[in-house]
Amino acid sequence: MIGKLVNDRVIAEKQAINELYNTGYYGRPKDDSLELTFVEAAHLLYRNKLDIELDGKSLGFEDFFKEASMRQQYFELKYIVYKDLKERGFYVQSSVTDFRVYPRGGHPGKTPAKSFVYVRSERIPMPLTDLLTSLNAATNVRKQMILAIVDEESDLTYYEVKNVKMKGKVDANPVPEKAISSSLLEDRVLVWDSASSEYLNQNGFFGKALDEERLQLSLVESAYLLSKGLIEVENSRDDSLLDLDLFSEIASSIEPDFMNKLRAYSDLRDKGFVPKTGFKFGTHFRVYDQVTSKGKIPHSGYLVHGIPKDTVFALPVMSRAIRLANSVRKRMLYAVEERNGTSYVDIGRIKM
Amino acid sequence: MIGKLVNDRVIAEKQAINELYNTGYYGRPKDDSLELTFVEAAHLLYRNKLDIELDGKSLGFEDFFKEASMRQQYFELKYIVYKDLKERGFYVQSSVTDFRVYPRGGHPGKTPAKSFVYVRSERIPMPLTDLLTSLNAATNVRKQMILAIVDEESDLTYYEVKNVKMKGKVDANPVPEKAISSSLLEDRVLVWDSASSEYLNQNGFFGKALDEERLQLSLVESAYLLSKGLIEVENSRDDSLLDLDLFSEIASSIEPDFMNKLRAYSDLRDKGFVPKTGFKFGTHFRVYDQVTSKGKIPHSGYLVHGIPKDTVFALPVMSRAIRLANSVRKRMLYAVEERNGTSYVDIGRIKM
Repeated sequence: MIGKLVNDRVIAEKQAINELYNTGYYGRPKDDSLELTFVEAAHLLYRNKLDIELDGKSLGFEDFFKEASMRQQYFELKYIVYKDLKERGFYVQSSVTDFRVYPRGGHPGKTPAKSFVYVRSERIPMPLTDLLTSLNAATNVRKQMILAIVDEESDLTYYEVKNVKMKGKVDANPVPEKAISSSLLEDRVLVWDSASSEYLNQNGFFGKALDEERLQLSLVESAYLLSKGLIEVENSRDDSLLDLDLFSEIASSIEPDFMNKLRAYSDLRDKGFVPKTGFKFGTHFRVYDQVTSKGKIPHSGYLVHGIPKDTVFALPVMSRAIRLANSVRKRMLYAVEERNGTSYVDIGRIKM
Repeated sequence: MIGKLVNDRVIAEKQAINELYNTGYYGRPKDDSLELTFVEAAHLLYRNKLDIELDGKSLGFEDFFKEASMRQQYFELKYIVYKDLKERGFYVQSSVTDFRVYPRGGHPGKTPAKSFVYVRSERIPMPLTDLLTSLNAATNVRKQMILAIVDEESDLTYYEVKNVKMKGKVDANPVPEKAISSSLLEDRVLVWDSASSEYLNQNGFFGKALDEERLQLSLVESAYLLSKGLIEVENSRDDSLLDLDLFSEIASSIEPDFMNKLRAYSDLRDKGFVPKTGFKFGTHFRVYDQVTSKGKIPHSGYLVHGIPKDTVFALPVMSRAIRLANSVRKRMLYAVEERNGTSYVDIGRIKM
């Protein structure tokens, strides 16, 4: 079987439709020929199912590989992923996303594709907007979205990306009889009164005890409680009361990422979760969907990081976040700032 | 017992030496009085062992706390750590580092201090040079260096920082009869010849098979082998041979961090280790101190990240790296570029 290299395709003669497409679903039949992408052609060449000619000369694997690499961006990356998927026994078709993958036991014509696979190099930063565009494209046609990330040694990691609706089980916010007094010190807020301290800690699991009498509130906790009118915060520098704007301004000067954190924190609280700091995990929050009493803290099912829409993921950093979350039996969620609220994107490793 | 707030100290009268220093090692005796730092004084006030006066007026806990917070940077952070160490039963003295901590069963005058404890907020980035200065100060007097990091909710994590000497057990580099040919494609190097591919993979665990015949080398592996004259690399764009400088230049354009990676990689190889990509862990390398045959890969004991001297650590990022390394039973090492080579700093979480 002979294929001719033409621009960014390999065109095989008519009988290829029968030999390659009808048996292995390689390529797309087009008029009286079969059009193969470079990765398909390279895989057939590797399997000795195809000879490839350029200008009447037959190309060996090395020659074709170099030629394809020069003519198509990310050719090697795509080849590595394609070969891996084929060896795992999937039927794969090239598409506008990188690949459409059919479910086990399925193939083109028999079943719809199950997944859209997007190929990325670990080295190339990935804008969040790209990820969301791909995710929408996949979910709009009810496909699973898979990211295949190729590392520098050509090892492959597959990630499933999905949207999640968040709904916790924590009761509504506490409602103290009157706003509780507190003081902003250098970079944290203290509640001095022991009854108030206990009340906030018992109702909603706010803050952390400084000692038996006093409670420390983090900056996000304080801003959230302040926004709900549940506390008032005195600036200990001049004894003035802080409003939410001024408080947020001070907090942002202490912690540049403050507004992203606060947005995610407030949304999670409003949806019935208890977010607590995720510092030990390197993320903004670990999140509980239920807290019954302060002495008995359940397992937190999620790590959540609040990110703005213009985030660009460094893939090694994303990889680490997900690996760490999964190693402690949590899901890694990104809380994305949308025009009309916050959406949650769940990224987790999967075995293909 | 009364102490007077003077500048950044609380000065207690002579009998305090007996009541507070001789029994609990609070403060430092100075002439006929006992000089207490703010954290010591706050802790004594909390324990009702001391009254504190300012301008003849007695201060309650809230008043003193606010006053101390205004007069001393990071007062609350230091107080949180001090209180935690005291409650764990250690004798603690204030010092030029933040605290000197005595071993269990030991105290000032009986035993030397065991550790220097440095207090940091998770929010404040930590320059590597600060860390190294502290580490040198501690190791020069044979003290353990401990970083106490306080997160936004005042939770505490202790890290031990130490220098490590690295020595692996992997035999010297392979010596092929003549330099092995390879090609740089888009962002990786391929060895086309199957005997050479097998040779490099079997001797030193270089590269990864593309298929049964061909081997893919990562950019750092290629640069290292090129620097040793073990391979030659052809640029597939124009068939020219690349020297190390030109290769490094191309690699750096693909991967901005390339020179840091290469430096760490080369040093580890030269010291008898096999570094492989640490992408899945979000670090430069996972490192093996022994590889017997390619089929049987042992557990890698270290994750290593190559960093330049002017690195500034974001503590949440550092925290995540260490937590992830420890969760997979590895040590997290930073390979630091020094003027005369590479040094390794091991940072790991410890329980106090």
